[in-house]
Amino acid sequence: MNVVVQNIQRADPEIAEGLGRCGVATVHEAQGRKGLMAAYMRPIYNGTSLGASAVTILAPPCDNWMLHAAIEQVQAGDILVLAVTSPSDAGYFGDLLATSLQAHGGVGLIIDAGVRDIRDLTEMKCPVWSKAVHAQGTVKETLGSVNVPVVCAGAQVNPGDVIVADDDGVCVVRREQASDVLKKAQARMANEEEKRKRFTSGELGLDIYDMRARLAKKGLKYV
Amino acid sequence: MNVVVQNIQRADPEIAEGLGRCGVATVHEAQGRKGLMAAYMRPIYNGTSLGASAVTILAPPCDNWMLHAAIEQVQAGDILVLAVTSPSDAGYFGDLLATSLQAHGGVGLIIDAGVRDIRDLTEMKCPVWSKAVHAQGTVKETLGSVNVPVVCAGAQVNPGDVIVADDDGVCVVRREQASDVLKKAQARMANEEEKRKRFTSGELGLDIYDMRARLAKKGLKYV
Amino acid sequence: MNVVVQNIQRADPEIAEGLGRCGVATVHEAQGRKGLMAAYMRPIYNGTSLGASAVTILAPPCDNWMLHAAIEQVQAGDILVLAVTSPSDAGYFGDLLATSLQAHGGVGLIIDAGVRDIRDLTEMKCPVWSKAVHAQGTVKETLGSVNVPVVCAGAQVNPGDVIVADDDGVCVVRREQASDVLKKAQARMANEEEKRKRFTSGELGLDIYDMRARLAKKGLKYV
Amino acid sequence: MNVVVQNIQRADPEIAEGLGRCGVATVHEAQGRKGLMAAYMRPIYNGTSLGASAVTILAPPCDNWMLHAAIEQVQAGDILVLAVTSPSDAGYFGDLLATSLQAHGGVGLIIDAGVRDIRDLTEMKCPVWSKAVHAQGTVKETLGSVNVPVVCAGAQVNPGDVIVADDDGVCVVRREQASDVLKKAQARMANEEEKRKRFTSGELGLDIYDMRARLAKKGLKYV
Amino acid sequence: MNVVVQNIQRADPEIAEGLGRCGVATVHEAQGRKGLMAAYMRPIYNGTSLGASAVTILAPPCDNWMLHAAIEQVQAGDILVLAVTSPSDAGYFGDLLATSLQAHGGVGLIIDAGVRDIRDLTEMKCPVWSKAVHAQGTVKETLGSVNVPVVCAGAQVNPGDVIVADDDGVCVVRREQASDVLKKAQARMANEEEKRKRFTSGELGLDIYDMRARLAKKGLKYV
Amino acid sequence: MNVVVQNIQRADPEIAEGLGRCGVATVHEAQGRKGLMAAYMRPIYNGTSLGASAVTILAPPCDNWMLHAAIEQVQAGDILVLAVTSPSDAGYFGDLLATSLQAHGGVGLIIDAGVRDIRDLTEMKCPVWSKAVHAQGTVKETLGSVNVPVVCAGAQVNPGDVIVADDDGVCVVRREQASDVLKKAQARMANEEEKRKRFTSGELGLDIYDMRARLAKKGLKYV
Repeated sequence: MNVVVQNIQRADPEIAEGLGRCGVATVHEAQGRKGLMAAYMRPIYNGTSLGASAVTILAPPCDNWMLHAAIEQVQAGDILVLAVTSPSDAGYFGDLLATSLQAHGGVGLIIDAGVRDIRDLTEMKCPVWSKAVHAQGTVKETLGSVNVPVVCAGAQVNPGDVIVADDDGVCVVRREQASDVLKKAQARMANEEEKRKRFTSGELGLDIYDMRARLAKKGLKYV
Repeated sequence: MNVVVQNIQRADPEIAEGLGRCGVATVHEAQGRKGLMAAYMRPIYNGTSLGASAVTILAPPCDNWMLHAAIEQVQAGDILVLAVTSPSDAGYFGDLLATSLQAHGGVGLIIDAGVRDIRDLTEMKCPVWSKAVHAQGTVKETLGSVNVPVVCAGAQVNPGDVIVADDDGVCVVRREQASDVLKKAQARMANEEEKRKRFTSGELGLDIYDMRARLAKKGLKYV
Repeated sequence: MNVVVQNIQRADPEIAEGLGRCGVATVHEAQGRKGLMAAYMRPIYNGTSLGASAVTILAPPCDNWMLHAAIEQVQAGDILVLAVTSPSDAGYFGDLLATSLQAHGGVGLIIDAGVRDIRDLTEMKCPVWSKAVHAQGTVKETLGSVNVPVVCAGAQVNPGDVIVADDDGVCVVRREQASDVLKKAQARMANEEEKRKRFTSGELGLDIYDMRARLAKKGLKYV
Repeated sequence: MNVVVQNIQRADPEIAEGLGRCGVATVHEAQGRKGLMAAYMRPIYNGTSLGASAVTILAPPCDNWMLHAAIEQVQAGDILVLAVTSPSDAGYFGDLLATSLQAHGGVGLIIDAGVRDIRDLTEMKCPVWSKAVHAQGTVKETLGSVNVPVVCAGAQVNPGDVIVADDDGVCVVRREQASDVLKKAQARMANEEEKRKRFTSGELGLDIYDMRARLAKKGLKYV
Repeated sequence: MNVVVQNIQRADPEIAEGLGRCGVATVHEAQGRKGLMAAYMRPIYNGTSLGASAVTILAPPCDNWMLHAAIEQVQAGDILVLAVTSPSDAGYFGDLLATSLQAHGGVGLIIDAGVRDIRDLTEMKCPVWSKAVHAQGTVKETLGSVNVPVVCAGAQVNPGDVIVADDDGVCVVRREQASDVLKKAQARMANEEEKRKRFTSGELGLDIYDMRARLAKKGLKYV
Repeated sequence: MNVVVQNIQRADPEIAEGLGRCGVATVHEAQGRKGLMAAYMRPIYNGTSLGASAVTILAPPCDNWMLHAAIEQVQAGDILVLAVTSPSDAGYFGDLLATSLQAHGGVGLIIDAGVRDIRDLTEMKCPVWSKAVHAQGTVKETLGSVNVPVVCAGAQVNPGDVIVADDDGVCVVRREQASDVLKKAQARMANEEEKRKRFTSGELGLDIYDMRARLAKKGLKYV
């Protein structure tokens, strides 16, 4: 059955944005190394770092009809997450849909498929993480769903989950855990700051993390 | 038999350049969604958009001999299109060949293989769309052909066809249809401009394209 | 047996840097087309060209423990080369390890796996050539070795070999042959400079390389 | 947190086996085209068709420790489903583990990674659907979990869900929906049987499915 | 525009079958090494060798509607060749369509996409060369064309061209050239038979093909 | 410089064959998990298990000239190992070369490229492990070398090294270490036999390998 779920719970925007500031690698570690999308998900341009609540889309291959239905559900600060029912590298999203998305306050798109008009999207500052860039158009023939749980690039995403995305990839944080993960991520950042100073001064990880005895015990020989 | 066809008909340069200004996604739609090369064809640097007549090359794997024969056939405004008889990611084309190509007025290269010296090519403003970047050199041992029909990255290209290429990929327009496709592409652009205004104002695709009734008829449920 | 070899012979820094200035494509040709890594090894940002002595690492998949052991072995001007015992696209290296590497004079990393924090690495000017970019973290559980011969992206690398890397990829030069290869590479560059002038003036490769008779003999027909 | 969930609900074995007899393509259609794993999941030998309840495993890359923990949880008729936290093609499972699995009544393995000893597994009639075949061994260093929800080859699998697998691939049916899906799948099979007779007699799909008017309306021209 | 071309010229069945008996590798050589599809096109089962006239299909991704229109055009001895407008690995063809195809005398399918029910197809002796095996179903929503020129797996195929397929892959022979290519292929086979005897007796290719002088001239050293 | 090294040291045939009987997975473990070729190296037919001394070939892409030079160097019991200087999936080796190879006592081929005539090779019982199957022919234009060290599918192979190959892949054992590795491999097999009995009787790996305490210490929770 194909549905558009209209009322979803979103993450607290401050928490989502806080996670975005921590970055994907830190958030991924902080929540126990889960929720990371596959390495093939790459930004169309570098330099963006964001955290936002997901409006999810389950779409057929080469068919972007549901993107239109999804944009109606977008609130300020949301990000679209599109998963496909079968692989496709067609260009589901271009400058017109980006214009529409931004007009409703949407901040970007995560898509396990292709995107086009990337020069325009770059100029519009509409960030997209995608599997492909391709001019191939799509049709509007087959239904999908909006705001249902999806598997996007190997990660389960529920509507309202927090998406964290930057130059290193895309990570999903369960909405219910977002506050807790943010605290852990911020603690990691503080801890990393301290470590960075020690590394800058020339201290070795072997000493900072006290690895020498464990390496020797495992049998590492220095020759 | 290996041939160099010396007299080919080219597209009208104004039409070719006009198509280049429309861009790949628009041209691909305007001609009924055909002629698009595979998504793995990527520019070595972003920001170029062009339309040009094709001088085609059918080359053996890891052998760039025919590129030299092809450059002799290049006229001002032409673009080289190189297809291979068996897959290769070797670097067929570098700064010396680019210098030669530009000296004869060639505007770039589409290659279903690899390219090298990309830093020089970028500085020289010699755009290339390729399957790979690799320093691997090639030999000059086996003949191919110049200005014969080829299949490049999944698209049939005849000599003199118009190549449209930008950050979204590469599309081929038959020379005989170029004028007609240009008109349709320009009409699409005008139409898109109008739609962009409506999207900017917040109107939804669901309403602009009158989709609500059709979605309901197909069975989409709002919950 | 897992070892860290502490005393390796390095290439002469002037020779290594000289090779870096020649660039990958030229060096690869100059040494008889060997030592090139696979085309999937790409820089995380464009514009760097370097030559440096390799400190090699053989690491388990998804385990970056040996990077810490390797950094202790780094001297000013060295580059790390990490090969894996089984494929992985996890992010073995990020901003903290880069800080540590730079504190010890290391100039970069070649890794047949993934890397993360690429925005930070770009700002720090810490160049990396990798198979993947991914936020996926690694563990510190299984030993590997440092400064043993490795196969990285299809190329054999011995400790102290010269790594040449730029936007076209990565090439390895045996330490023992580095001086000889440098001379040949510089000769090629001088020769190319002369050719560039002839190409710029419009001369064709067909004439510069005297190819017409050989093409005719092989059977190429002009029609 | 790493857990082994010991008491899971399983699907009714008769329902699971019934789904297995319907086959992957039919079951996938019957449940509305969802739950299908990616096309890269292939059987190590052809000819098996099964339906079984899933004991799920979330494992680190190149680390098969959790397989041992999982086999203790296996009951007669169960199938193991192993998902990884980062991609790996190492051989997690070979003839010894297969012996252990069969000794506890397990019927096979679905693994988003590699498998080895495939000649032995074939002789033992221990079917495996995997992403790779590789002799590469694994370690036992890092924890994962058993009987937690996982994403395997792009499909969400909960412990106790029904796995249907045959030469066409692997499909997951939610335990709660298995009875309902079985009815629909059996109805499809009956319907297909009738269609098969009509096709055998030479009737065309165009007529059996009454497609001619719709094709004409969409604009298909016969020339 | 979407069309079904109803009257196409076919190759002489004896010539097509004769080409099938020569096999793909021989035919490919005999026609000057052209017309070969990409290496990813693999048979669903080994041991078939055929030559047949092509009924071509251009189909949208994940949409098998045109297969039904194509089967109406099939005559005894024809083979279907399906190309896609955008990549797909969905299963376009299964046992019901195979039943229909065989009822009309069709001998198999070449498809640059996926296929399913491969156990049934194997039992029915309905050979298929495909890019993928996948249970993923398709829709019947978007038009394509039948009996138009297509590019399938990198090779141009015109309706009525001869398809030669065996365990080594798939090759296309232009209908107009089929008779000539058959003669050349048969000559090659006779020649190979003679060579096989010489190789069996222990003679070396170095001597049979008189390579020693040329190797020496090129600079090969025996040490 | 291109050379054919004529006198190489081979491994003791009994040791090589003994390693073949142990199989790839066991040998790979026995020598400390090194020497394994990439997972993409697959047999053209299942069921062969062998150990043999390597005659190595370094060949250009799409050029099989050196295979002829190599076969002259083959002695009874040798296996050919072909590495390429740039990737290729062309069919370097078919039934004529196989006839020649067998006439000189060669037992098979390991090739980091393509092979053709696989139906004939299967009937001739000439096993090949390859990256691809493709009818694409090769040329005889460019020199390579015979019996030099090569990197094949990610593994370093020296002439005379032992190649172990079976349905799980291909592993290389240094000639100098072959005797020692054989002993370790045989010890592993004896040990595995004992373990197999315990697994067959229903004992768990958790107990056989005494894992419970270590799992608990690492933090695994049973719930």
